[in-house]
Amino acid sequence: MKALITTVPFAANNRLPLDLLERAGIEYLINPLGKKLVELELISLLADFDVIIAGTEMITKEVMSSAANLKFISRVGIGLDSVDLLSAQELGVKVSYTPDAPAPAVAELAMGLILSLLRSVHVSNMQLHLGYWHRYFGRRLSECVVGVIGVGRVGRCLLNHLSGFNCKKVLLNDLEMNSDFTESMVVEWVDKETIYREADIISLHVPLTNKTRNMVCKEQLEMMKSDAVLINTARGGIINERDLYSALKAGHLSGVAMDVFEQEPYSGNLSEIDRCLLTAHMGSMSIDCRSEMELLATKEVIRFFNDEPLLGLVPEDEYIIQRMEKVI
Amino acid sequence: MKALITTVPFAANNRLPLDLLERAGIEYLINPLGKKLVELELISLLADFDVIIAGTEMITKEVMSSAANLKFISRVGIGLDSVDLLSAQELGVKVSYTPDAPAPAVAELAMGLILSLLRSVHVSNMQLHLGYWHRYFGRRLSECVVGVIGVGRVGRCLLNHLSGFNCKKVLLNDLEMNSDFTESMVVEWVDKETIYREADIISLHVPLTNKTRNMVCKEQLEMMKSDAVLINTARGGIINERDLYSALKAGHLSGVAMDVFEQEPYSGNLSEIDRCLLTAHMGSMSIDCRSEMELLATKEVIRFFNDEPLLGLVPEDEYIIQRMEKVI
Repeated sequence: MKALITTVPFAANNRLPLDLLERAGIEYLINPLGKKLVELELISLLADFDVIIAGTEMITKEVMSSAANLKFISRVGIGLDSVDLLSAQELGVKVSYTPDAPAPAVAELAMGLILSLLRSVHVSNMQLHLGYWHRYFGRRLSECVVGVIGVGRVGRCLLNHLSGFNCKKVLLNDLEMNSDFTESMVVEWVDKETIYREADIISLHVPLTNKTRNMVCKEQLEMMKSDAVLINTARGGIINERDLYSALKAGHLSGVAMDVFEQEPYSGNLSEIDRCLLTAHMGSMSIDCRSEMELLATKEVIRFFNDEPLLGLVPEDEYIIQRMEKVI
Repeated sequence: MKALITTVPFAANNRLPLDLLERAGIEYLINPLGKKLVELELISLLADFDVIIAGTEMITKEVMSSAANLKFISRVGIGLDSVDLLSAQELGVKVSYTPDAPAPAVAELAMGLILSLLRSVHVSNMQLHLGYWHRYFGRRLSECVVGVIGVGRVGRCLLNHLSGFNCKKVLLNDLEMNSDFTESMVVEWVDKETIYREADIISLHVPLTNKTRNMVCKEQLEMMKSDAVLINTARGGIINERDLYSALKAGHLSGVAMDVFEQEPYSGNLSEIDRCLLTAHMGSMSIDCRSEMELLATKEVIRFFNDEPLLGLVPEDEYIIQRMEKVI
């Protein structure tokens, strides 16, 4: 059996996943382009592989159809927007993922981005590296209303972090209200519009689906307070980058942090804007979380190879979501 | 009575302190140079003022002797390294300060700097603004030993923030151990050397005194782990900048955050080093804390003017510290 490892970096800090593959007798190739693959690159690389140990590159019907031997996709991470689950099902390709592993690392990055934005750390740092000294005013969380859209694995971790900061108020939005975890903090469940209008800090933690694609466009940006800060560590495409650029250029919002982009590697014009804090999809990139994700995804491949029960199969819910989206 | 307001910015977000001075009939001048004053600038400005509403500029014996009318110094903030208390006492100049107000803002900035350093947010941001995409590995606090040197007002606030992050271990150092506040987290009181050697994150929260000046030099830097991160939001001069520059140039330490500098505004060579996260003495610069500090310092001036009891007089301890330092 042959596995194509598309996600990069892979096994950079911990060789164990490669050792396990070798011991199991599974041949592998690590993405030789060293970047997120586009469809044609993936098709040409995938030709005779049986398994993908996948990142966030698009695994479309065309990709899967082109690879006659493909039987299994093991996603390193959460987020299934990149995998056409229905075509996978049709073609008999099984899909597993590691939804829990990245959450703590993403939440901790989000918290860091929030604190940087509130105090203009990124702006001052850039200026001081150019020899310019200006003392920026900022805000503390105890002066701020925090809005969290998407209260799943990552959102909950973020709430844990926020609990040590005495926030003025915390507004939450999700498809369903969960009250089982909020004993340490007073929260309010509200609709998204209330968060757009009332929050000083808006952090997004929803998956990318047809419903959340372009969830934050011109209209939503305009609802926001002129000095709000907005953080996207979830998926590129949830915030419309063109509309965001226009809003920022017009002086709206006091800061934005983007870790994820419509197209990655990112090379768009948000880089012109100093108060736009940009990071290179590093949410899950803490050594421990990344190692855990890689290990879980690799062990799943070995279980598949050995015909053992799979532990990380994508649940039926995710197929239903994609089926509903197709219908709409 | 005439007050010279040396600290800048002043009343930028809240005019109330100026209103109060005006209502009280106190003339004032806000530092017309708009930057931290050096001794000669301060002497030439101070000529016939009775009161200084002071920042962190050096108020030496020469400064005070040169101002025949000077009777009172009201420090906006904590830290008395800039005021020669013994000469003030000799010359009959009273000194007040606002030690509590800045702490929450400093601690929150420190927390933001820690999270940025751990995930190379500052490096990735700078690179993406130049069009370069690289996904950096980072660490989470649960993988890190945190060392806090100085567990006073700011250090304690920082520990509150850290409580939401499940740190691997927290090492504390101060002149005396305080066990009254650590029920939410397991901490260990250790000597400074243990922190230098064992901590992955070292955050400094001590005042600047003769004992802490150059506390972190070549010798201490060399004790630190090669991938440690170091944060100074306390006072410039506690870390020797020349030694720090050499250590970083040699590849030691994975990141450093400096909010305070031996000379401010800062224009030194740490700006050459990308993994050095630089901010412009913004620790206390949250709108609420800054307003509070300005208001407290101003009200103290009005009390002085009205011959009412002063509430923020610098305690005798601080004089004793400076007296002991003179003897040594």
